Amino acid sequence: MPAEHLIPLLRKDVPSKIVLLVMDGLGDIPAEPGGLTPLEAAHTPHLDRLAAGGALGRTTPVRQGVTPGSGPAHLAMFGYDPLTYLVGRGVMEALGIGMQVGAGDVAVRGNFCTLDAAGSIIDRRAGRISSEEAAPIIELLQGVQVPGMTAEVQLVKEYRFALVLRGAGLQGDIEDTDPQVTGQPPLPAAARSQGSQKTAELVNTWIAAAHQALANQPKANGITLRGFGGDPRLPQYAEAYGLRGACVAVYPMYKGVSQLVGMDVIKFSGESPADEFAAAQNVWGDYDFFFIHIKKTDSMGEDGNYEGKLKVIESVDAALPALLELKPDVLLVTGDHSTPVPMRAHSWHPVPLLLWSAQNALPDAQTQFGERACGLGGLGTIPATDIMPLALAHAGRLEKFGA
Amino acid sequence: MPAEHLIPLLRKDVPSKIVLLVMDGLGDIPAEPGGLTPLEAAHTPHLDRLAAGGALGRTTPVRQGVTPGSGPAHLAMFGYDPLTYLVGRGVMEALGIGMQVGAGDVAVRGNFCTLDAAGSIIDRRAGRISSEEAAPIIELLQGVQVPGMTAEVQLVKEYRFALVLRGAGLQGDIEDTDPQVTGQPPLPAAARSQGSQKTAELVNTWIAAAHQALANQPKANGITLRGFGGDPRLPQYAEAYGLRGACVAVYPMYKGVSQLVGMDVIKFSGESPADEFAAAQNVWGDYDFFFIHIKKTDSMGEDGNYEGKLKVIESVDAALPALLELKPDVLLVTGDHSTPVPMRAHSWHPVPLLLWSAQNALPDAQTQFGERACGLGGLGTIPATDIMPLALAHAGRLEKFGA
Repeated sequence: MPAEHLIPLLRKDVPSKIVLLVMDGLGDIPAEPGGLTPLEAAHTPHLDRLAAGGALGRTTPVRQGVTPGSGPAHLAMFGYDPLTYLVGRGVMEALGIGMQVGAGDVAVRGNFCTLDAAGSIIDRRAGRISSEEAAPIIELLQGVQVPGMTAEVQLVKEYRFALVLRGAGLQGDIEDTDPQVTGQPPLPAAARSQGSQKTAELVNTWIAAAHQALANQPKANGITLRGFGGDPRLPQYAEAYGLRGACVAVYPMYKGVSQLVGMDVIKFSGESPADEFAAAQNVWGDYDFFFIHIKKTDSMGEDGNYEGKLKVIESVDAALPALLELKPDVLLVTGDHSTPVPMRAHSWHPVPLLLWSAQNALPDAQTQFGERACGLGGLGTIPATDIMPLALAHAGRLEKFGA
Repeated sequence: MPAEHLIPLLRKDVPSKIVLLVMDGLGDIPAEPGGLTPLEAAHTPHLDRLAAGGALGRTTPVRQGVTPGSGPAHLAMFGYDPLTYLVGRGVMEALGIGMQVGAGDVAVRGNFCTLDAAGSIIDRRAGRISSEEAAPIIELLQGVQVPGMTAEVQLVKEYRFALVLRGAGLQGDIEDTDPQVTGQPPLPAAARSQGSQKTAELVNTWIAAAHQALANQPKANGITLRGFGGDPRLPQYAEAYGLRGACVAVYPMYKGVSQLVGMDVIKFSGESPADEFAAAQNVWGDYDFFFIHIKKTDSMGEDGNYEGKLKVIESVDAALPALLELKPDVLLVTGDHSTPVPMRAHSWHPVPLLLWSAQNALPDAQTQFGERACGLGGLGTIPATDIMPLALAHAGRLEKFGA
């Protein structure tokens, strides 16, 4: 039996509450030899008290050495091996700009390109037109509809857009239409399996209509499509774990991934950690599981802003008492991946993990939440997909396996 | 998607250099209660400096508790799970004595045995004849050829030899001919699949001719064959990792395994660590990846020579500055397995691993390269197959997975 099939079999529904507090890109490396990371240097009395009472460890989001994107990294934290549950790039792109991708929908990434009179691509990025230039062209595309499905187009940025197709019997097992080179026309959308044949035909009809609509554009007179895919139909939190899940996040991408696993997205105003904790408090009675996502740790890491990342961590710590007053049974504090300040990018380094539990915790000797303390922590270095089983266990939500 | 398929998909080719320095059988256990291992006791200032700036950990070559042979242990370090990539014992035996096993070749291990007048085996090891006695008999076998293939025979030791078959359309999916008991004749070579049918017939013809050639031998008048197999067609370093790999090794076995994954074997004179580092220096500009193999740590372990193993480790450390002057981007120092002095044999104990990286390393609190420091190291205890993904990541040679 694959391990991921085990947990749902052991599911036990009891009234306990789990909080998964994610500081995006939390993990880091020292900015200089002998130095501390932002998390190690930050003044975090509340997190340290949780660390002292709970247990520390580290997670590997995908595999050793593999740097994850946000989508796979969140799937792993949510309990789904991202190598088993492959979510199409189109779906992630659409979710990332706040589009809905439901069961049966097909999503794909689009590029504007420049075609010559013979229909061959002469610029794969349409002269890298700006978002401002692209906006009215996106409106033209939004008007392109063909019988058999509805097409929703939204601008991502500059020459890039996302396309979500909705209708009966659609399937997204379709090859890219981007030939990856200039001097050739875009490829037709080709089905990789019988079930996607009809969808590929509809896509080709839509592309032809789109090219007609764009015919007079000087730069963006063509499109290519990449990364077709449908809703990956992930096991839903309610059935798999018996959890009513709530997502408290500011950015669309994280709301989208949460929806893929069946969480409700909580609406709230404000963007600060305190605002997010208040949002959790508002719906505390309605849910068993709270995914709270802090984005700015990652943004500061990507900006190479050491002091900024440190301050975001301290702001989370300062706001933490409001969350603790809700008395969660299990509180996990971690990141989806590392975004080291010196690298200004996501990385493969293991991610700090803090597991605090109102009861049943096996504490370790660590008393401060930081990368190297986590490396010596009692949880060890574990796959990120082990977070949910540990959370459920500490929340009393898993039956014994076997007699 | 199986994890081993992921890394090649993420391959990014940049000009960075990786050195994998392997002290064979490096891992050990204390020779007496409370004592130190040879690695812990050795004076290794250069390795300790690397340990302080980098991160330590340990590897499990195959699985917990499993003692690996040199072949599987090296495959794992090179990134290939030895339970997925089964390399026939015949191939390993042939490689181990310096024979070539190319694509399409079939290799098998052979034993001389003693047959009675009826053709039944009365001694499965031909009276354990010495290598000296076997040498002229091997010459007889070398003269045995049948149409449809060429057969190369080389003595391994005493009553054991290796046989490599070359020709068009050969396949090695063939049962052993050794019945494992006396009182029965050797079994015919039986194909386990249709594609090996022709090869099995050729082998049976060759065995009959061999028995004729050996008919007058008093002890070694028969042969049995075990462990048929072909080139396992491992993914090659150039395609899988984008690495031009160089093997710097003294012993044939390690050259052979390196060739299986597409490394070039570097010719050089001398046998010392300094000679090996000089050989790497000579071809430094031509390769991205350098596998440097030190054999004598293992030999000393097998001999139960504590002081000898310690001195070999110190000799590697003393020569290390020449290697560091080449300025590798990533340097890994490890063993393929443990060969504890008190056991005088390979063992299953986890293997010390030192990962030093010119940038992007997450250092740990460890400052001395040794078994127990590695057990507390920041890399944790990981499968040996994770070595290459970590090396590639630190060398900047892997793209992000997913968006």
